[in-house]
Amino acid sequence: VSSHQPLGPGREFDAVRALVLQWGSRATGIGDDAALVDVPDGERLVVSTDTSVEFVHFRREWLSAAEIGWRATTAALSDLAAMGARPLAVLTALVVPDGWRGELGAIGDGIAAAVEAASTHIVGGDLSTGSELSLCVTVLGSSKSPLTRGGARPGESLWVTGALGGPATALRSLLDGTTPAAAARGRFAHPSARVREALWLAARGATAAIDISDGLIADARHMAAASGVALAVSLDNVPRFGECNPADAASSGEEYELLIAGPGMDCVAFTREFGLALTRIGEVGPAEGAPGVIVTSGGARVEFTGGYDHFSA
Amino acid sequence: VSSHQPLGPGREFDAVRALVLQWGSRATGIGDDAALVDVPDGERLVVSTDTSVEFVHFRREWLSAAEIGWRATTAALSDLAAMGARPLAVLTALVVPDGWRGELGAIGDGIAAAVEAASTHIVGGDLSTGSELSLCVTVLGSSKSPLTRGGARPGESLWVTGALGGPATALRSLLDGTTPAAAARGRFAHPSARVREALWLAARGATAAIDISDGLIADARHMAAASGVALAVSLDNVPRFGECNPADAASSGEEYELLIAGPGMDCVAFTREFGLALTRIGEVGPAEGAPGVIVTSGGARVEFTGGYDHFSA
Repeated sequence: VSSHQPLGPGREFDAVRALVLQWGSRATGIGDDAALVDVPDGERLVVSTDTSVEFVHFRREWLSAAEIGWRATTAALSDLAAMGARPLAVLTALVVPDGWRGELGAIGDGIAAAVEAASTHIVGGDLSTGSELSLCVTVLGSSKSPLTRGGARPGESLWVTGALGGPATALRSLLDGTTPAAAARGRFAHPSARVREALWLAARGATAAIDISDGLIADARHMAAASGVALAVSLDNVPRFGECNPADAASSGEEYELLIAGPGMDCVAFTREFGLALTRIGEVGPAEGAPGVIVTSGGARVEFTGGYDHFSA
Repeated sequence: VSSHQPLGPGREFDAVRALVLQWGSRATGIGDDAALVDVPDGERLVVSTDTSVEFVHFRREWLSAAEIGWRATTAALSDLAAMGARPLAVLTALVVPDGWRGELGAIGDGIAAAVEAASTHIVGGDLSTGSELSLCVTVLGSSKSPLTRGGARPGESLWVTGALGGPATALRSLLDGTTPAAAARGRFAHPSARVREALWLAARGATAAIDISDGLIADARHMAAASGVALAVSLDNVPRFGECNPADAASSGEEYELLIAGPGMDCVAFTREFGLALTRIGEVGPAEGAPGVIVTSGGARVEFTGGYDHFSA
């Protein structure tokens, strides 16, 4: 179904044409004022937009151009995972400074690889100049019954996918000017959007989900606020990447794992299916608690700060 | 239906909360990982994303913050008009440098005004820092039978809404450091997305449409390429804003008027309905012509260059 509209002349459109050619069957129906997408009957449209900005979300010396494209696209797709939605389409609005123009093909490769990993297609976008590289990725998905942040109910368990702290570990090295270990760097440079995992969990009764791109506890606070419940998280149970300490694991941003509320889950079956841990890290409640997150370690309550805030300082 | 999810703590979310509060009923369902949108039964989803970047699309001394928000949102909504789609929802991903943070409320006012003019709602977005102000606006709409660029057929007429050249006239003054006339400046600073006009024209048999944000002739070339037809445009018939000369009117970018192919139209009824001109400027064909645009003046063919290309030079 890759029926593109022929584009008119011009260098900007030459650049679009080159990207579309390179994307092959990963791009469909490019070239009109807007893209057409069909939402399956009886499903709701789920849509999110997410921007990755040079110097804010990444630096050129940290990542290859393909990794920049992959990460930006995966970060956006992760929002569909957090809603338990199946991806339908991706749009990419790129601001490309002159000094990055030679890397556009490699950025496009990374975008296409992330789109392919999520079994979806690029249906449109926008290309502009500017003084810093910026990738605004819009993702469309659909679901019969989307998972919101607001569905957690007292008595349920809290689950997290994967192991946390890899991106924070890698970022610390990068900011210090040292070379991160390959595994930690991979967690930062090449995250996965947990789309299939979310569908599996939703099918087994998950009631609420959020991706933890701002850090586990910071994002748990959003789930608590949206659900109007207290969430109790045991730091001792937070699954940690490598040697990462529990507090760093629980505050590490740039994670694209999922925090889920729901009933008992078969963690062994989950790991067999996805090769990924699923860990119970706490519970929803008590019912009378004010909305918020209660963090414990060794059975005692601890104060917890951390998580990323774009407008802080 | 303005049921937002409560947000967690943090300055970035304080800024989101302030925007959402200010937007009132113009914002709905903000605060989850993604937004939920219902597409009417039997309609196709129409989606487009469009970025406005400081120094590329506007300069701070040219426009008020509210005008910057209005223009970026209207430019994106214009893509829905060009598809004959009814707006369903808007998402705004904003990159806001420190020096612009005090203007965020005014930018938000402009966004909300444009959203209100199109009778739609803001359902999500993203807020980030960066070194230049950038607004990535994603618009969602729907249509039973979208108008593409590819539907023009030999024998049809070409129609354009409004009068062209105002933005080019204003931009020339601004670039020269002089004050543009108020009317021309208004055409640049406060364009309209021709959403209702496009629905009217689609209901009366229009077969193809494009918005002429890159200039009439440049965008006519896209319609010609997509439709696989020759388009004949008479410069003498191009409706001009004020004293603008025909060549400037036909190359003026930043227009958000529509170029339409279709059968005979009742221009008087159109003007009565919308207070806006609808002008026949040419025709589709001849059938044997190669795809492209034939521009004539005084009955003779003229060479025509012009139109905006982000990647030129």
